[in-house]
This record gives sequence, structure tokens and C-alpha cells, in this order.
Amino acid sequence: MTVRRLPSAGFSITIRVAVTADASAIGRLTTTVGEAGAVVTALDVVDSDHTHVIADLTCDTADAVHADQVVGSLEAMDGVEVRKVSDRTFLLHLGGKIEVHPKVALRTRDELSRAYTPGVARVCLAIAENPEDARRLTIKRNTVAVVTDGTAVLGLGDIGPAAALPVMEGKAALFKRFAGVDAWPVVLDTKDTDEIVNIVKAIAPAYGGINLEDIAAPRCFEIEARLREMLDIPVFHDDQHGTAICVLAALTNALRVVGKRLADVRVVVSGSGAAGTAIMKLLLRQGVGDLIATDRPGALHRGMSGLSESWQWLVENTNRDNYAGDLRGAIRGADVFIGVSAPNLLTGDDIATMAPDSIVFALANPDPEVDPRAAREHAAIVATGRSDQPNQINNVLAFPGVFRGMLDAQARAYTDDMGLAAARAIADTVGADKLNASVIVPSVFDARVAPAVAAAVRAVAKGEEPFTGDGYRSETPADGLRATIDHAPVVPDPSVS
Amino acid sequence: MTVRRLPSAGFSITIRVAVTADASAIGRLTTTVGEAGAVVTALDVVDSDHTHVIADLTCDTADAVHADQVVGSLEAMDGVEVRKVSDRTFLLHLGGKIEVHPKVALRTRDELSRAYTPGVARVCLAIAENPEDARRLTIKRNTVAVVTDGTAVLGLGDIGPAAALPVMEGKAALFKRFAGVDAWPVVLDTKDTDEIVNIVKAIAPAYGGINLEDIAAPRCFEIEARLREMLDIPVFHDDQHGTAICVLAALTNALRVVGKRLADVRVVVSGSGAAGTAIMKLLLRQGVGDLIATDRPGALHRGMSGLSESWQWLVENTNRDNYAGDLRGAIRGADVFIGVSAPNLLTGDDIATMAPDSIVFALANPDPEVDPRAAREHAAIVATGRSDQPNQINNVLAFPGVFRGMLDAQARAYTDDMGLAAARAIADTVGADKLNASVIVPSVFDARVAPAVAAAVRAVAKGEEPFTGDGYRSETPADGLRATIDHAPVVPDPSVS
Repeated sequence: MTVRRLPSAGFSITIRVAVTADASAIGRLTTTVGEAGAVVTALDVVDSDHTHVIADLTCDTADAVHADQVVGSLEAMDGVEVRKVSDRTFLLHLGGKIEVHPKVALRTRDELSRAYTPGVARVCLAIAENPEDARRLTIKRNTVAVVTDGTAVLGLGDIGPAAALPVMEGKAALFKRFAGVDAWPVVLDTKDTDEIVNIVKAIAPAYGGINLEDIAAPRCFEIEARLREMLDIPVFHDDQHGTAICVLAALTNALRVVGKRLADVRVVVSGSGAAGTAIMKLLLRQGVGDLIATDRPGALHRGMSGLSESWQWLVENTNRDNYAGDLRGAIRGADVFIGVSAPNLLTGDDIATMAPDSIVFALANPDPEVDPRAAREHAAIVATGRSDQPNQINNVLAFPGVFRGMLDAQARAYTDDMGLAAARAIADTVGADKLNASVIVPSVFDARVAPAVAAAVRAVAKGEEPFTGDGYRSETPADGLRATIDHAPVVPDPSVS
Repeated sequence: MTVRRLPSAGFSITIRVAVTADASAIGRLTTTVGEAGAVVTALDVVDSDHTHVIADLTCDTADAVHADQVVGSLEAMDGVEVRKVSDRTFLLHLGGKIEVHPKVALRTRDELSRAYTPGVARVCLAIAENPEDARRLTIKRNTVAVVTDGTAVLGLGDIGPAAALPVMEGKAALFKRFAGVDAWPVVLDTKDTDEIVNIVKAIAPAYGGINLEDIAAPRCFEIEARLREMLDIPVFHDDQHGTAICVLAALTNALRVVGKRLADVRVVVSGSGAAGTAIMKLLLRQGVGDLIATDRPGALHRGMSGLSESWQWLVENTNRDNYAGDLRGAIRGADVFIGVSAPNLLTGDDIATMAPDSIVFALANPDPEVDPRAAREHAAIVATGRSDQPNQINNVLAFPGVFRGMLDAQARAYTDDMGLAAARAIADTVGADKLNASVIVPSVFDARVAPAVAAAVRAVAKGEEPFTGDGYRSETPADGLRATIDHAPVVPDPSVS
């Protein structure tokens, strides 16, 4: 049932081999690697003499086990010696993936005097007098903390703060790459809710927003709720809100393709944790017809007892007909399946029981809730979280633009209305003429997405109508003006332009 | 007694004026500004018509009060209208002074696959398995936290975390500029010692070192001591250790100039707080002849009671003859005065009572313990913390190189031996042929300083003799090698080079 991974650049290795210099030697190398199922992407001769060639052979493999098999197949060849195997992903991570750059020149004494002592003292005093000035005179203007305790990292679970760091660095790199946001990893060596809340509160003065990331449920709900209460900057939990925005965007376009209205459809969600709950809340807010939340115990329904606060809320706000069975029964006749749960819960036959023109978002990673090929035999539209399948639902479509918009608006909180606006902006980026069953979300590399999301979020934050112009990375005019000492002209002289 | 500040770039303003377009108008502008004591650095015509000129006049002023006077003198002129006054220091601070840059390209799906999912998962798992790998596969390799609670910022006192941020950003910019170290500001909205310790411990996984900054004494001692105990990365309090290193470096060269040995001199320190205590401990460790610590109650001596732990230590380890009088009496016949205390405590006449060839480091900022001009009439060597006087003792000589060396050595703690080595490296950067009473420390812009300090510190950290080669920003060879999968050649083939 599992979809075999294709060779990918994420598992690219470079193998240094010494091989006898007969005419066919190099050809035999690439043939062997190809037969082992890897994709050769480069072959560089490093050195040679009359009898031997040393070459670096780079190839994409499917995973670590496959990489070992590929190397083994080369070692088994006559006249070939494997010298060294380099893992390009590990090489790329050496020393980390982000760095801190001065935005100011520090070449001369004058420059030092402005950026550091004695000039900096006046800027400090200005902020001490008016703390709001930190939003324009410091990194707070453009900086987001990416906060995790390392308890729910990717599909890897509780791997701890140090091991979570590469993901947070990657996230920070994406923030800059896609929306010019400066993001900094805050990986916390504690799992104590109170302590996490206190730490984020204490470090907040340097940040214009908090992005919570990969924190296990239900702790993540309480942390988010308490921080939202305490802080005057937006608190966004990407696993919840980012996922919800992207799912709503994809669903909006999927419904456009099949010609159904959100108010008319029945949606079944598999997985009622952080992501699932956030998705359902946003769908409810957007006016979904009916919604059934499922998890390990089956459909959440009135009549269940001893539920967590979050499940109790779902029981009270979903499942109009109080369906009480399992997931399989729930999707019978449903229009939309959204899975944020576990691999291989459903088969193609299950999908066949859904309503005509059904929509399947099987987002468990790396292995979806249902084999997407099997699902496509029965559903009108299938989306996954995988980059090797059509319709990849990827949070990078949302979070960079959402924070860009909130920072530019100097927003004090993230709201559901911002999420709805962001989802609409993402959906609308796929033009009506481009939309089809295999293209319901824009590419993660579509440069129009983040600016559109940012504009939509900023407009909501400022209480304006969304506008379509490109306000990406713009400073508000007020920023420049407020940098001047307030010093009104004594008498405006109309004779001078 | 106060030394009048000279106009400086830290107080540079740009004044937009509209002036009648008679032949002498512009000349009168610059004359007026010059007569007001400012230094014109630029004059740019912005616009003009037949009767008026609009110009941007940029000038260095001495301080904010002086800037107002300069503007006032222009406003008082006939035919001149001041339109706007821009403060170049504030303009430079707009949006903050540092930013976060990806070190990895994220242009294509392949690049995304290596830097983020799915490739990143393998790096996470490698670190989860061997946490030490974080020191080479994440930003921990090269990153320092600059931590403050904002309670003792510059000479400004307790201005809070937000107002301290511009200083910490400046520090981070200096770290990168002078030693390639990535430093990140951690400004904490708490003054609770326990909480500060817990927070720094919790955020430590992302950092290869902790630089404590501008935290008030005595809290700073306990915070530092407890963190050193807890963490496996160096903890350095720049106000203490950085200052001590620079003072020892300057004193080393000053003694070379006057031909005295440290073991023979008597040193009087004014100010027994964080900086003073650290200076004295390092001087004692280097074998100073005798040392008298003074503070508000006069010389610290045995017979005083109810002392803090830190003063008790000083009483027991300094003041060989148990001198019990005031500062004035203490410096009578002393060879060296080191002030890290308050302005204008001494006069030239006091300096005249010191031993022949006396050395005076009056480091209170912005106004030294004694007018440096008056001191120079009687002392052989005078140094201050000011950039407009010779012999500026500036911590930027020490901290970038110290952390560069510690990071490269993957040091687990900062030690006094590193401090001694750093001080010697700074002192030795001033060649014997360059050394004189006005040049006892290298320029802060001397590009040789940080690499020399880094090499000295790294050698101590690794238990090696210091070496003189330029190892600046170098990766240890092991770094590159360990990035490869351990995959030994099956049979080394000597026929292949």
C-alpha cells in the first residue's frame, strides 16, 4: 500500500570511486547505478593516470537504505573501489543554514559612532521613553521567533530541541526566501508548559511575531492561548493555522473545479489533533455545510464522555446528525475527505463509497492515509503533502506571506479573518484559466503567492479592503517620516516648492 | 572638569532649509553652522527656483542639546526657513541593524529537498542520535547569544529590554564584522535571577556560546556562575571579562613603554563592581605586584564587615598592607590607576602624587575619572574609553576574537587562561617599533587583532601552544571529513593515488 519513494535530491549522495581505466569503465559505473534504481545527476573526473580514473559520481537515491544498496552495487563490481561516500544533504548542513548579517556598514569610526556608541545611546533613550518605537527602530520591525520544544518534529516525534534545530533553521531560511522576513530559531530545552510560556513572554521584546512550530498537542493549544492573551504581537502556530489556511485554499479551488459550494458539502476529517482541529475551526468559520471529526475512537459525537476541552468543543460544533461510527462509515456519501492523521487508513474501495466528484486530501507524511493512485481511480481530486505527487499542500504557501502582512501592519494578534483572507489569496493565485483537477494550489515557487497573501493579511489587520497591488516588503510611508525629529516648519512658505 | 564632547558622527543631523537665492545665501548657512560649533560634512541642493534654494545641510554636532542650538541658529537667520531635521543615527536604525540570511540556495525543488523536507529529517535524526553533531550540522557551530536584561546598558542604567535592543544589535553587528561570528540579541523582559538562568539554559541548544551583556551587578555574578556550572558552552560576561582582557592588554604595553614589570607595580582600582572585580582577578592571576580595590567606602580592607561575597574575596586577596583610607590616599605613590567608576573623582594634582612614570586608565564613560588633559600633565601614559582621545580601551578589541577562538575550538567553557592569552595577543599586535605613550592598544579597525586573539584563545582551548598562523574562520579539517558517511575503502589500492 505504501507508495515507493522516488529517488530525490533530499537523498542525493556523491560516491568517490577509483576504477580501472578501460574504455567501458565509466559507462559500467552509471549503468550499475541506474540498474540499482538511482538517478545519476553528475559524474566528475577528479584524477586519473594511465591505469585508473578517480571520479565523483553523484546520484539521487530514494532513502538511506537505498543509498546503501547503490553503494553496495558499486562495491560488488570488478575493478571498482569505493573511496568515500558524501551525503550532499549533510554537507549542505555543515555550520547551519542561516547566518546573521549587519545591515549597517562598520568600516569607519563615523559609521561605528552611529551604529554603536555613542550614537546608539540616543536611540535607546528614545525607545525607553516610547517603547512602541522598538517596532520601527529595532529588528522587532521585521523579525519572527520560530519557537519549538522539539516534541513533534516533522513525522519524527519528540526528538528534542537540538535535533529540531535543522528544521527551524530551514523554516527561517524559507521565511527570508519567500517573504523577506527575518526569522530566528528558538529551540527550547524544556517541555514544561508554564516554562515555555514564560520564556516566550520574556524574549518577546525583540520580536514582531511568534511562530510556534512542532510542539505536541494538547500542550500547543494552551501555550498558544496563554501567549495570545499575554503578548501584543501575533502568535501563530504553523502546524495549526498554516495548515488550516493551505487546506482551505486548496478546498476552495477543488470545489471550484467540481462545481460544489462549501455550504453544501459534507467534510470528514481524519485526525483531530492540532492540525485537524484548526482546519475544522477555519472551515466552520468559512461556512462549511457539515463536518465530521474523527480520530482513533472513530467519529467524535455527542454521547462521548471524558473528552479533552478541544474534543468537547468539536463534539458540540460538528457532526450535525451525530454520526457515531468509524472513519470508513463516515466517508460513505461524504463530499470531502481531509486526512491529517496516519498512513494507509483507507483503500480505493473506501473512496469509491464517497459522493460523486469526491475530493480527497490525504496529508499524512510521508505515507498518506490512502494510496493517492488508488484514490484517483474514484475521487475527482486528490491532494497530498508530497512533493512527488500533484497538488502538494505545503505550508510554505501560507506562513511567509501571513507574517509579512502582519509585520507590515504592525499587527498585535493573528485572527481567523486573516486566515480566511490568506486562504482566498492563495486560491486566487491559481487563475481560473489554469485551474484543473491536478492544479488546485499554486507552486511553492510561485513568486506571486507571498505578496498576495501579505497584502490580504495586511488589509485585514488594518481594517481595510484587501487590495491587489504589490505591497511586498514596502515600508509604510509613516516609517520614514517618523524617523525625523518632529520639527515643524515655522511658517510654511508657499513660494518654495 | 568635564571634557566638552567634540562634534561626532554619532550626532550627525541633516537639516533641510529653504533659503532666498541671493549670491551669499549658502555661504551664510555654512558660516552660521560653523559658528554654532558644528562641523558641516555635506551640502546638497535639493531643489531651486528663481528666488529660493532648498538644500540639505548635513553636520556633526556634539550632542542633542547642541543639535538643537545649531538648528536654532539657522532658524534665527533672515530669509532662512528650516523645513525638516533628520537625525542620521535614527535613520540608520530604521528596521534594525541586523538581518537573517539563508546560507543555502532555495531556488529549486532539489535545493528545497535538501535544506528542508524530506532531506532535513535525516540530519535531525543524526543529531537526535548524537547530540554533539549539533555543533557541526547546525548554527550552533558559529552562533553566540548576546543576552541582557537591560538593567545596566551603557551609562544609561536600567532602561529595559526593548531599549537595550539597539545596543545588542550593534554588538551582533560587531561580532560579524570583526570575527565572522553570528550573534543574536536575546533581550529579556525579566530581572529575576532564577528566571534569567532558566531561560538561558533553555535556549542554549541553538548556541555555541553565551555573551552576557549589560546586566547589573551583583546579579550578573550569580547568573554567570550558575550558567557556567550548568552549560557545556562558554559563558562570557563582556562587561567583566572583555573589559579585563582589554585593560590587561593596555597595561602590558603601558608597562613596556615605561619599563616597569607587572610584578613590581602597585595598582589602584576605582570601582569594585563587575568590571573592576574582573580586572583585578585577571591582574592577580597575571601576577601583579600589589593591588588596592576602592569603591564608595574607600579602599576595601580587612577590618570591614558585612561585605558582599565579591568584596569579601577582594579584601582577602588584595591590599597587601591593608591600607584603609580613601582613593586619593590610595593613589599616592601608586604606579597605576585604573578607573571603572564615576566621572571627575580626581584632579591633575592627585595624579601628581603618584609614582614617577605613572599610568592612568580613566575609563568611566562618557566622562572619565580625571580630565585626561590634566592627567597627561603628570602621568606618563593616559588611556580612556573615549574615541576622541588617544589610547581608547574598547572591548571590541577582545570579544569578537575570543568567541571566534572558542567556537573554532568547540570550547566548553571560558577560562582565565584564555583571557590572559587574548590580552597578550592584543598587546603584541602593537609592534615594538610602533609602541609609544599614545599607542598602547591597536586601533579597533586593525584587522590583525581578531584573528590573533582567536588563534591565541583556540590554542589555549585545545591545550596547544599558541601559533601565529592565520587560522581565522577556518574549519577544522575534521569538520569536512565527518560530514561523509563512514565508509572505509574495502581494500586500499596503493596503485591509485
